[in-house]
Amino acid sequence: MRVIEKYNDSLHNPYWKFQLGPESYEVKDTPRRVQAIKDRLAADPRFAREKAGAWPEHWLTRLHPYHDYIRNTAASLREGEEFFPDLFPGEGARLPRHVDRPLQGGLWCTDAVTPIAPRTYEVAKASADTALTGADHLAAGRESAVYALCRPSGHHAGPRVFGGYCYFNNAATAAEFLSAGGRVAILDLDYHHGNGTQEFFQERKNVFTASIHGDPAVEYPYFWGYADETGVGQAEGTNRNEPLPRGTDIAGYLAAIERILEAIAAFDPRYLIVAAGFDTHADDPIGGFALQTGDYAKIARRLAALDCPTLICQEGGYNLDILGDAVHTFLSAFL
Amino acid sequence: MRVIEKYNDSLHNPYWKFQLGPESYEVKDTPRRVQAIKDRLAADPRFAREKAGAWPEHWLTRLHPYHDYIRNTAASLREGEEFFPDLFPGEGARLPRHVDRPLQGGLWCTDAVTPIAPRTYEVAKASADTALTGADHLAAGRESAVYALCRPSGHHAGPRVFGGYCYFNNAATAAEFLSAGGRVAILDLDYHHGNGTQEFFQERKNVFTASIHGDPAVEYPYFWGYADETGVGQAEGTNRNEPLPRGTDIAGYLAAIERILEAIAAFDPRYLIVAAGFDTHADDPIGGFALQTGDYAKIARRLAALDCPTLICQEGGYNLDILGDAVHTFLSAFL
Repeated sequence: MRVIEKYNDSLHNPYWKFQLGPESYEVKDTPRRVQAIKDRLAADPRFAREKAGAWPEHWLTRLHPYHDYIRNTAASLREGEEFFPDLFPGEGARLPRHVDRPLQGGLWCTDAVTPIAPRTYEVAKASADTALTGADHLAAGRESAVYALCRPSGHHAGPRVFGGYCYFNNAATAAEFLSAGGRVAILDLDYHHGNGTQEFFQERKNVFTASIHGDPAVEYPYFWGYADETGVGQAEGTNRNEPLPRGTDIAGYLAAIERILEAIAAFDPRYLIVAAGFDTHADDPIGGFALQTGDYAKIARRLAALDCPTLICQEGGYNLDILGDAVHTFLSAFL
Repeated sequence: MRVIEKYNDSLHNPYWKFQLGPESYEVKDTPRRVQAIKDRLAADPRFAREKAGAWPEHWLTRLHPYHDYIRNTAASLREGEEFFPDLFPGEGARLPRHVDRPLQGGLWCTDAVTPIAPRTYEVAKASADTALTGADHLAAGRESAVYALCRPSGHHAGPRVFGGYCYFNNAATAAEFLSAGGRVAILDLDYHHGNGTQEFFQERKNVFTASIHGDPAVEYPYFWGYADETGVGQAEGTNRNEPLPRGTDIAGYLAAIERILEAIAAFDPRYLIVAAGFDTHADDPIGGFALQTGDYAKIARRLAALDCPTLICQEGGYNLDILGDAVHTFLSAFL
């Protein structure tokens, strides 16, 4: 299997985050996550590393209205600086005509855990390029399954705002690219609902979005991810959410997988994109499910049985001791 | 002059704030601000201290949709806890049906500098009660000028959201009370635009709102406070903003005062409410104007010349060495 990689991960290493609680200042999205995955896959000759291409900016700008804001803000910062918005104006705010660059931040970003640093733009763009490079292999018919080792994650970045450690939506960008060739289904397996991905496509009939995640009544992103969000207008029926309770193990998880795969099979996509988070593991420090490493083979075998060209985009997963094995187990089922 | 005070200020003493920059964690809105003012006024027998009354909750609930959220969140916290939202969902978010208490925070609050602690509600309510008690003296015709020593400040709290160290809008609550008896003008002299106050009354013809402040193109609250915001719909013409550049001294400031007083005189209010911030002083650690302590007498004499019953509500002002003198100088001009 081709593994699409980028080589600037160490440049995205946020120092600050801000959340209440004893672990407030421990940033969990570190470059070591990527290194752990690379190390594990490098030990298996069935995986072939390939460098992501550099794609034109328009693949980002067509989806992300905050593209220029992220690029220009990053370019304006000095080494060591990180910019967070300090006012999130909400509904009805207008963009001031003469406003200075960073003051716009609260229009585009949803939180104080997704800072912009001098190298944020180039790393986030490379993450989307990684997904696009993988998608290109599928579109060309060269592969049946490709793994894009994206970081930063993308699935909380949406058509209005970014946040939740995400800047550009990697899976959505790949779906936009692939949808020129046929219907696309996106299945989000991260512990957190893929609210950005859902919002990108909630009014589009040609992209089916689905997500299995911790119940947003008690888990981030709180405001989205409920079962009654099923698509908007003409796209009614093309979104599927499976919020599951804390403690869900592989039995409950596979039942949700079956329900979603039935809907995806009925949608009959030409391409499948899996937004693959591994914070569903029992030992993950953030997620609340109870999956074991071997369970990822069971899940992946069900997806592979769809027999649909599949792009796997990396999302969350924060336990460095199990992340490499979990990813390796998941991907191996597609071989 | 009556000075309306409350006695629980020490219970509102936020520990955390979150803003980029070297002074990130120095909270400037401390109870020592109130103590500095009390100490200075106590030295002058022309000022008579009076305890704020306890007003019915409906004076807050009728204006503030987040009243119950603040009250219930405060009640749910343990000693030492402070709650900040970690996701500000912005336009289009719905309130989840089953959502847990603190997760709603980002719907109601605009930033990560306005935490809720166990005693926040009772202190913020007492601050509004202080303004209401002062307003009651005016309505009863007992006084021509009353000073309400409010804290927390109120003018960034609006009809949708609170933030910027503010929970309930003290001046707006007093205006709501006084407007039953006639037209009310609110003049906001804090260094920061009174965006909450403006939004409360931007569609109401019977309350005129005006603010003199640092240009929001470079100063908080960024998205509001521009000169072309003049009221909405039937209330067109009843809002006036005077954004002034950094470094403005008393000459430029008094020119703005004259322009606004002309508009207020034309509005012919029965009551005047002054949202009095003293972060316009040259030595204030936050504001960027160049006023001197004696200048507050010049400003106040112009306001007193309106000969309109006046409620002065305390807003910002963060230099403890000059705050007491500045307030004393301002108030003395009304005697």
